[in-house]
Amino acid sequence: MLSKNQLKLLHSLRLGKFREQHQLFIVEGIKMVDELIMSDFQVHTIYGLGDWYSSRSQKLTERKIDFHEISEDELHKASSLVTPNAVLAVAAIPDASLPTKGKTGDLVILLDQIQDPGNLGTIIRTADWFGVRYIICSPGTVDSYNPKVVQATMGSIFRVKVIYHELQDFIDTIAGTHQVAGAFLDGEDIRSALIALPAAVIIGNESKGISKEIDRLVQQRVRIPSFSVTAESLNASVAAGILCWEYRRRG
Amino acid sequence: MLSKNQLKLLHSLRLGKFREQHQLFIVEGIKMVDELIMSDFQVHTIYGLGDWYSSRSQKLTERKIDFHEISEDELHKASSLVTPNAVLAVAAIPDASLPTKGKTGDLVILLDQIQDPGNLGTIIRTADWFGVRYIICSPGTVDSYNPKVVQATMGSIFRVKVIYHELQDFIDTIAGTHQVAGAFLDGEDIRSALIALPAAVIIGNESKGISKEIDRLVQQRVRIPSFSVTAESLNASVAAGILCWEYRRRG
Repeated sequence: MLSKNQLKLLHSLRLGKFREQHQLFIVEGIKMVDELIMSDFQVHTIYGLGDWYSSRSQKLTERKIDFHEISEDELHKASSLVTPNAVLAVAAIPDASLPTKGKTGDLVILLDQIQDPGNLGTIIRTADWFGVRYIICSPGTVDSYNPKVVQATMGSIFRVKVIYHELQDFIDTIAGTHQVAGAFLDGEDIRSALIALPAAVIIGNESKGISKEIDRLVQQRVRIPSFSVTAESLNASVAAGILCWEYRRRG
Repeated sequence: MLSKNQLKLLHSLRLGKFREQHQLFIVEGIKMVDELIMSDFQVHTIYGLGDWYSSRSQKLTERKIDFHEISEDELHKASSLVTPNAVLAVAAIPDASLPTKGKTGDLVILLDQIQDPGNLGTIIRTADWFGVRYIICSPGTVDSYNPKVVQATMGSIFRVKVIYHELQDFIDTIAGTHQVAGAFLDGEDIRSALIALPAAVIIGNESKGISKEIDRLVQQRVRIPSFSVTAESLNASVAAGILCWEYRRRG
């Protein structure tokens, strides 16, 4: 059963202001909820079909997770997916503070006002692949607990720490240990640029790029060269992927 | 003015079966419509605000493009975007046939059942950046004239030719000239793999990867190595971007 109040909470969590108020977010689908349960995130409630529950009941009981069986119909009402997948969980947004200098890892991603949820989710997933432990987002970046971001991470949201903070402060913290690199359309060709770990790589907004205030702090302005006379730019998450790859490959 | 029939046509073109029936698709927003007008695609009709028209009237008249002025309200009704942007065009789906062996270019992308519109759009955009002229899609791949795909290409849909055809046929055509490479989670580390142009790079379905029938035809099974013990896979469009980059970088 899904009460009116429960449904109201689930729907409200699609919006940032209610996620902030309740400090909760939504995780959907079998794979994602399994990853949530295995993670160190705190599970608030799980709503799922009976079939899903029967194969997980022991684990849920062990971990004292609050489970509510719902019908297919209720799942459709609760879900924001076109094809909901058996289960939906509410989880607590963890505390997030800037890592100390020694804990950042040798490769950090900094996002300056990324707006598209799919891009942020894909960047979190890519970061996980390339062993990036922290992503620092400028305050104007899309919320990492937006349902579209969460789903696009394919579970990496539970492993990579995403922290919202003024980029300038963080850059000050890592000054002297990490090379601060940024992706620019007029940067130096990455093939000849002297890139080296430890590094912090900045990816800018989808249409405006890296803001002026942050540009001033960049030590290494790099560019992924184009092999076409007509193309204008790469997608932000593809650019982030190629840059992470270059650092790791040469690393 | 936007008639009921015009609105009905615009809405119907969100669905593949009507795009196929009419051989038309939708292009939205100032930048995209400008790219359409400059391209060699045939424009069927443009619906836009008066302000938009006044700055383009000469160009539209010269090219004998059928323009209808609509109100903000009508634009919102017609658009599939949350924030419509001044103009919306209907364009003809061009004829598409497999390139002859000499016309494929030195780098071709083959897509085996890519399902996510955002991924396909991003791959088309990435292909444009890396000088890929043709993308060959297996018949089960999402439609490249799906509005979400079109918008995600950022205009590259007008430059890169996307052709739906059995991949096997195309691979037969390029046999002997192009190295046929595919992205696999258990492939050879791309750092040591002997990759070389001309090449055809195959990207598989988001969850199932490259299908068995196509796997048999792959000469070079490559993998982008992970630098993490927890991550499971890369997003398909990020993987495509890194592979295109590797081919171009090593040249």
